[in-house]
Amino acid sequence: MPVGTKGTVKGLTPGDLREVGAGIVLGNTYHLYLRPGSDLIKEAGGLHAFMGWHGPILTDSGGYQVFSLAQTRRISEEGVEFASVYDGSRHVFTPELTTRVQEDLGSDVAVVLDECPPADAGREYHEESLRRTARWARRCKEAHGRRDQALFGIVQGGLYPGLREESLGLTVEIGFDGYAVGGLSVGESREEMLETLALTAPMLPAEKPRYFMGIGDPVGILKVIALGVDMFDSVLPTRLARHGAALTQDGRINLKNARYRTDFGQLDPECACEACAGYSRAYLAHLVRENELLGHRLVTLHNVHFSVDLCLKARREIEAGRYEEWSRAWIARYESTDRAGTDKLE
Amino acid sequence: MPVGTKGTVKGLTPGDLREVGAGIVLGNTYHLYLRPGSDLIKEAGGLHAFMGWHGPILTDSGGYQVFSLAQTRRISEEGVEFASVYDGSRHVFTPELTTRVQEDLGSDVAVVLDECPPADAGREYHEESLRRTARWARRCKEAHGRRDQALFGIVQGGLYPGLREESLGLTVEIGFDGYAVGGLSVGESREEMLETLALTAPMLPAEKPRYFMGIGDPVGILKVIALGVDMFDSVLPTRLARHGAALTQDGRINLKNARYRTDFGQLDPECACEACAGYSRAYLAHLVRENELLGHRLVTLHNVHFSVDLCLKARREIEAGRYEEWSRAWIARYESTDRAGTDKLE
Repeated sequence: MPVGTKGTVKGLTPGDLREVGAGIVLGNTYHLYLRPGSDLIKEAGGLHAFMGWHGPILTDSGGYQVFSLAQTRRISEEGVEFASVYDGSRHVFTPELTTRVQEDLGSDVAVVLDECPPADAGREYHEESLRRTARWARRCKEAHGRRDQALFGIVQGGLYPGLREESLGLTVEIGFDGYAVGGLSVGESREEMLETLALTAPMLPAEKPRYFMGIGDPVGILKVIALGVDMFDSVLPTRLARHGAALTQDGRINLKNARYRTDFGQLDPECACEACAGYSRAYLAHLVRENELLGHRLVTLHNVHFSVDLCLKARREIEAGRYEEWSRAWIARYESTDRAGTDKLE
Repeated sequence: MPVGTKGTVKGLTPGDLREVGAGIVLGNTYHLYLRPGSDLIKEAGGLHAFMGWHGPILTDSGGYQVFSLAQTRRISEEGVEFASVYDGSRHVFTPELTTRVQEDLGSDVAVVLDECPPADAGREYHEESLRRTARWARRCKEAHGRRDQALFGIVQGGLYPGLREESLGLTVEIGFDGYAVGGLSVGESREEMLETLALTAPMLPAEKPRYFMGIGDPVGILKVIALGVDMFDSVLPTRLARHGAALTQDGRINLKNARYRTDFGQLDPECACEACAGYSRAYLAHLVRENELLGHRLVTLHNVHFSVDLCLKARREIEAGRYEEWSRAWIARYESTDRAGTDKLE
């Protein structure tokens, strides 16, 4: 899911998103609640109408942003009080409020309010937190009234297998339309993340969508798919683009590196997106160096196309029963030629 | 002519430019010579190939930028020495060099190197300067070898009718494919500018294109067209857009003004561009407030569409013999509802 934090996938129109094959877009409840306000978006006819994207939208609950962005926050049984990242104003997110806000936004998939503690918060804290998150999840479900909107629960529990199992049991007991695995990609190692996911995913109901929150690098995507994940989101493809880094079959390249100044080849020789079809690496490198809007736009378009296309390929390989060997070969090629290390971001 | 300073009309693809009806794009020799370098663009196959725009391109000579951007410059008979706005490196633009650079860029129309003194530089200085500019113009013509590239001369002479006449005579005597009127929009009043143009334009050869350098506001465009101008350029439509200001039939509006937060109407009710057709003022205002790339892109698209469309309408009215009454009515409507004054840029 490309991330449209503030009601826009940075630099792209809904038409661009359709063209790159995006099937769903994520909106951040935290940001949209504060700017321009979910009341305004409701008045506009909902987020689809407001941003002109008529495909599916998933909104998160804002929990992750409250815990990652807010300088000062206070958690209680009632909810979480925080200071706006925009103007420092005080707000309280309760399960009831974030549910109503997402109903106002009118997304196709809403997500329960959860606490997302750092990986190293300690077992005792994680235990207390996951139980509160489960109580919040129940309140979200009770508050949720829109029949045309799915509601997803979130499994927490840090890196503790026992706590993951407990959180999963409590969440599945409440019963949701889909399940997110939260609290990963928050400071732990990639190995710890995959191990924890490998323990958690098989226990999730097989017939419900599984959403892994916050992964966007190509290798990571293929690895979580292998563990049974159906959905994921990350700002990585769009954020990399704004720094001049492009994802290709042969690894990540940084267009600010001097080698691309005179490289008249195609950004990704195997890609058919508008950026690859119409421009050279040298031109894109020039735009990126000069901080030109068109550079951000075209590299973003490419990175989102690349990521969506990778997922479409993965789906085809799964259907053909070849996923394991295909993904192993894909990762081997990508990693053998990846320049993320040598093409340093300037 | 939309201005593509550094080989891109900020935020727009060549496809966008075609869609808004742009018939020609301007490139800045000064910027392209310094970044990414005209040698590189030549190697890429010229500016058309480099930026992927296959319609006509006019390049200026870089003279205006040398005189408006450079902190330190030294003019001699040979040419003008200046410090790069990017890194302070020293360069010398001679008539021969700027001609060769434009041949390397491969634009369809090249322009002679001129000195562009401020309006208040004094008669004596203007006289000396216009004569040197005429000598430079002759050297440009002698240096110019590309048969597939037109070369335009530039008339200078400040606000002095006698000097304008002298400059025009010297320039026409050399003989060019078209004539630019330079040295206006450089600090004089709008009335002085129009008066000087009104004196100069009728003396230009009737069968050659007349290019007025640096006008982009809708009313100004209609007024210089009335005086017989065929071509003009300005960064105004694109620059305004990046500040959140949009051009409409009813005047300029600043989307950062609070009134547009909840305005779900169309940006310009009479416009059919992608920004007007797909989004509300409230959404565009949100994007602009949040400094979102998509906001810059969509408002730029609209402003360029608006400006090009205004010129196409003007052409139709000229052909129908109704230009004077049509433009008078158009200006009256625009000015009566213009909010450029009340919708302050924040």
